[in-house]
Amino acid sequence: MERQQALEIVRKQMHEKRYIHTIGVMETAIELAEIYGADVKKAELAAIFHDYAKCRPIAEMEQIIKEQNMPQDLLEHNKELWHAPVGAYLVEKEVGITDYEILQAITYHTSGHENMTLLDTIIYVADYIEPGRKFSGVEDVRVLARTNLRAALLQAVKNTIGFLMKKDQTIYPLTFYTYNALLKEEQVE
Amino acid sequence: MERQQALEIVRKQMHEKRYIHTIGVMETAIELAEIYGADVKKAELAAIFHDYAKCRPIAEMEQIIKEQNMPQDLLEHNKELWHAPVGAYLVEKEVGITDYEILQAITYHTSGHENMTLLDTIIYVADYIEPGRKFSGVEDVRVLARTNLRAALLQAVKNTIGFLMKKDQTIYPLTFYTYNALLKEEQVE
Repeated sequence: MERQQALEIVRKQMHEKRYIHTIGVMETAIELAEIYGADVKKAELAAIFHDYAKCRPIAEMEQIIKEQNMPQDLLEHNKELWHAPVGAYLVEKEVGITDYEILQAITYHTSGHENMTLLDTIIYVADYIEPGRKFSGVEDVRVLARTNLRAALLQAVKNTIGFLMKKDQTIYPLTFYTYNALLKEEQVE
Repeated sequence: MERQQALEIVRKQMHEKRYIHTIGVMETAIELAEIYGADVKKAELAAIFHDYAKCRPIAEMEQIIKEQNMPQDLLEHNKELWHAPVGAYLVEKEVGITDYEILQAITYHTSGHENMTLLDTIIYVADYIEPGRKFSGVEDVRVLARTNLRAALLQAVKNTIGFLMKKDQTIYPLTFYTYNALLKEEQVE
């Protein structure tokens, strides 16, 4: 699918601020894919569609999680997590994208998972550091992302856990499994 | 068992600094038990014996974890966790303490768990705030512990997760589950 066609599809799914964020993630993901030798086209498409379901009604997302047998523990945690797996489902169903790597990168772009591929990592990190992001700590991750993508991912996951703890929000188990898995990987290296 | 007898037993198990820490935990645990209406005698004994295995050789602890069918994932995480369940096992076997509540408080005094009893909480928090502890953030937890024990526990768990992330150490799943469980409890209240 061509970039313009993909962008036109997602533009109808979200308000302008979210669309501008999507463009930022797309540009960052392409840059990271070029630096690290990932499939640039897949990075572009995964980035364009990563927030496809972000503006869907909560009730619709909840229904899809229940009906499509997604991990039911999602329902006990932050609703911010829901749009990622629901988005992958809807991108396949409504847009017709079937590439497993792209769908996986969309599925895990908020929670992370224990075996993050290069594409998964690029989308997670691009979403965290795109130029529109202003939160505390983002600049360090931006710098790291251009030299050590894995370290950038680890720092982004740490920041996310710290941020959730500050706000007294539960942490989705996959997120800390991601943290533990990244550290174990480092110990092995 | 009388306090003096218990103290004589643990004194032989540890070096002086650890023994002084034990006295601090004992005094703090008794104070908290009195404030919150817990069984003072059980708090005293659990505190006295909480670090019973702390100075055992790593190899001995590893063997006990393997042979006694303790959670085997302990072996993949920080060795600092091991002395707690191993301690409960040895306190029962070598000292003859069979009280389930005391043994449970010893077992979980480092990791926490998802259903912390009042006694479990007292030992966890007393271990964190006893007068010998000097680390960053301890004073806030000390103040909280006298007015809201559950909030003190939550803050201590958060500090522990933050501390481990700073040191790039894996976080034992039970510790994260403890954090999530405490927040869910608050949401229910």
